[in-house]
Amino acid sequence: MTESVLNIEGYMCPLPLAHNERIVLAHGSGGRMSFDLISKLFLPAFDNPILRLGDDAGLVTIRGEGDTTLARLAISTDSHVVSPLFFPGGDIGRLAICGTVNDISMLGARALYLTAGFVLEEGLDMETLQKVVASMQSAAEEAQIRIIAGDTKVVQKSKADGLYINTTGIGLIPDGIDISGSRARPGDDIILSGTIGDHGIAVLAARGELKFETDLSSDVAPLNGLVAAMLGAGREIHVLRDPTRGGLATSLNEIALQSKVGILINEEAIPVRPAVQAACEMLGFDPLYVANEGKLVAIVEQGSAEETLARMKDHPLGKEAAIIGKVTENRQLHVSLRTAYGTTRMVDMLSGEMLPRIC
Amino acid sequence: MTESVLNIEGYMCPLPLAHNERIVLAHGSGGRMSFDLISKLFLPAFDNPILRLGDDAGLVTIRGEGDTTLARLAISTDSHVVSPLFFPGGDIGRLAICGTVNDISMLGARALYLTAGFVLEEGLDMETLQKVVASMQSAAEEAQIRIIAGDTKVVQKSKADGLYINTTGIGLIPDGIDISGSRARPGDDIILSGTIGDHGIAVLAARGELKFETDLSSDVAPLNGLVAAMLGAGREIHVLRDPTRGGLATSLNEIALQSKVGILINEEAIPVRPAVQAACEMLGFDPLYVANEGKLVAIVEQGSAEETLARMKDHPLGKEAAIIGKVTENRQLHVSLRTAYGTTRMVDMLSGEMLPRIC
Repeated sequence: MTESVLNIEGYMCPLPLAHNERIVLAHGSGGRMSFDLISKLFLPAFDNPILRLGDDAGLVTIRGEGDTTLARLAISTDSHVVSPLFFPGGDIGRLAICGTVNDISMLGARALYLTAGFVLEEGLDMETLQKVVASMQSAAEEAQIRIIAGDTKVVQKSKADGLYINTTGIGLIPDGIDISGSRARPGDDIILSGTIGDHGIAVLAARGELKFETDLSSDVAPLNGLVAAMLGAGREIHVLRDPTRGGLATSLNEIALQSKVGILINEEAIPVRPAVQAACEMLGFDPLYVANEGKLVAIVEQGSAEETLARMKDHPLGKEAAIIGKVTENRQLHVSLRTAYGTTRMVDMLSGEMLPRIC
Repeated sequence: MTESVLNIEGYMCPLPLAHNERIVLAHGSGGRMSFDLISKLFLPAFDNPILRLGDDAGLVTIRGEGDTTLARLAISTDSHVVSPLFFPGGDIGRLAICGTVNDISMLGARALYLTAGFVLEEGLDMETLQKVVASMQSAAEEAQIRIIAGDTKVVQKSKADGLYINTTGIGLIPDGIDISGSRARPGDDIILSGTIGDHGIAVLAARGELKFETDLSSDVAPLNGLVAAMLGAGREIHVLRDPTRGGLATSLNEIALQSKVGILINEEAIPVRPAVQAACEMLGFDPLYVANEGKLVAIVEQGSAEETLARMKDHPLGKEAAIIGKVTENRQLHVSLRTAYGTTRMVDMLSGEMLPRIC
C-alpha cells in the first residue's frame, strides 16, 4: 500500500493551483486535469491513506470491540450529469446504477447496497423522472443490489439540467481478495473485456454530433456478474479497472503510476467496433480515450490469462474479451502502444476535454 | 419494523401522480410534497423494507459466510444545494459534512466514513472551491470522520449554481442499540437539544431577505458527540431525529406516522431565539417549520428524561436542551401543540415551500 501512496504523491508533488484559476469543463474529463484537481486541491485537504490509494473505490475496514476486523468494505461515489438524459442503450438512471456498481466491483467486492441522491431542476416533467427511476430499479435488479437510502433536492430553472443523480455504493470484500491498481507486476497479462468507445460515441450520436446514422448503443452494464465469474477461476487477479471517463489510455496510465510499472499494449489486439472507429476518424478522436461504461481491464498473474479469459468469454459481457498486452518494467512508468505497423508510441493520459458530460 | 412499514404504506396509499405534473421547488421542501414524491414515485420503484422504514439513514446488516451478522451499518446520503454558498456560521462544505454525520447519528451509529461527490459549474473560481473543501475537512475533523472516496463532475455555465455537494456516510451501530422513528411509545418524553430555526433564518439573512440587521448564526454542527454523550447515560433512547428541512413540526409528524402514536408538545417549552422569533413574525413564518442543522429531537423511555437531559446539558451542543412534550395515544396520529394561552392546536407537516435551497 505504501508504494502506491508514494506513486501518487510522486506525481502530485509540485505546481500549486494558479491564482485566479477557474473551473473549466476539462476538470471533469477524467483525464490529466481531473487528476491535477484531485492531486492539488482535494487530496491535500482530505488527506488520508485510503483516499491516497487512488482506486476506483475506497477500501475501509470496519472494526469492532478490541479492534477486531468485522468486515472489509469497498465504498464508491459518483455523480452523474450525462447529457442528454436518454441515449441509445441507456439513460442517466441506468448509468448511475452501473457506474457505481462497477467501481465497487473493481476491488473484487460483492456489491450490496446503493444510495441515490437527486438534484432536480424546477419544471422537470414527472414522466421523465419516472422513466429514469424505473430504469434505475431495473438496472438495480440486474445487478442484484438494493437502493436503501435516498435524497431529493430541487433547484430553480437553469440551476441544473433536468436532473443529476449521485449514487454511492457499498460492497463486501470477501476474505482473501486483494485487488488494487497498485498490484500490477512486470510479467502480468492485461485482458480487456470487450470493445472500447461504445458509450462515448453513442452519447455523441444522441447529441446529434455525428454526421452519419449509426445503430451503435452504449455498453452501459453492471460488471459485478462478470467479475464474480472471473474470481470463480480461482487464479490471482491483481488489478481490475473500468475505463470510463478518459478511456482505456487514462486507466492504464493510472495503473502504471499506482503500481510503478510500465505497460505495453498491442493496437491490433484491442477490439473496436467499425462504427466507433469511423466516428473517431471523422471527429479526430482516438478510441483509446473514449469512455466505456460496461468494460473492464484486468491485470492477472503471469500464466493465468488464458484461464481467466475463458471464464470471461463464457459470460455475456465478456464474449469479446481479449488479451491486449503485458505489464513491463519501466522506470518512467510509461504506457506504450505497439501499432499495427509494428512501431511503438507512448500513450499518455487524456489531456484537456474531449467529450464533456459523458457520464 | 413491520408496524412502521404499515404506517408509511398507510399514508402512501392513494393518489397517483397527476398527468403532466412537473417538479416544483416545494418537492424539495422536506415537507408534505417531498413526502408525496417519495411515497408516490421513489418508494414504489425502489421498494424494499429498509427504504420503507423512512428513517434518516438506512440500516443494513452486512452478512458473511453462513449468513452470520458481521456488522450493522447506518448509511445515509444527502445532496447539498444551499444558496448562498457561504452564510453566517457555516457554508455548503460544513453543511455537507454535518448533514450526513447527523443523519447517521440518528440511528445511534458511530459515524466512520464519508464520500463526497461534487458537481461544479464551469467558471467557478478555484479559491471558492478551496475554501469549501477546507471547511469540509475542518468539519470532518470536528466530527472525527474521514472522507474516503470522491468524485468531481463539471457542467456548463448556468447548468448548476457554483457547486453542489453530495455526501454519503457510513456508521457502525453498536450492539444493543435500536433507535428508529418507529419506536416512540405512549408515555415517552420528548427532548429538544436547543433553539429552533437558527439555520433557516441565518441563510435567509445571508440572502439579504431580512429587513433588519442580525448577528444570528446557523447552528450547523456535527451531533455525533452529543449522541455519544446521551447514549453514555445508559438509558433507553427510542427515537432520534434532526429536524432539518421542514423543521421540528415535520419531524414530529414523521415520527407520529412511523410509530403510530400522537405527540403533544408545549409551545412555551420550545426554545426560540428572539432574533428568530422576530424574523419569523416579520415574514409570516412559524419557527416550528424552519430548518435546523445542529439540533436533535430525542424520544426517551418514560422516567429517563431527566437523566438524559442532564447528559445533554453537559455537552456544548446541548446546553439549551429542554423537555418539550410527551408521546400520547392518538388514533389520528396527530401532533398537537399546547399554546402559551393554554389552548391546543394541531400541527401538520410543512405544506408547500417556505425556504427553497436551505441545505
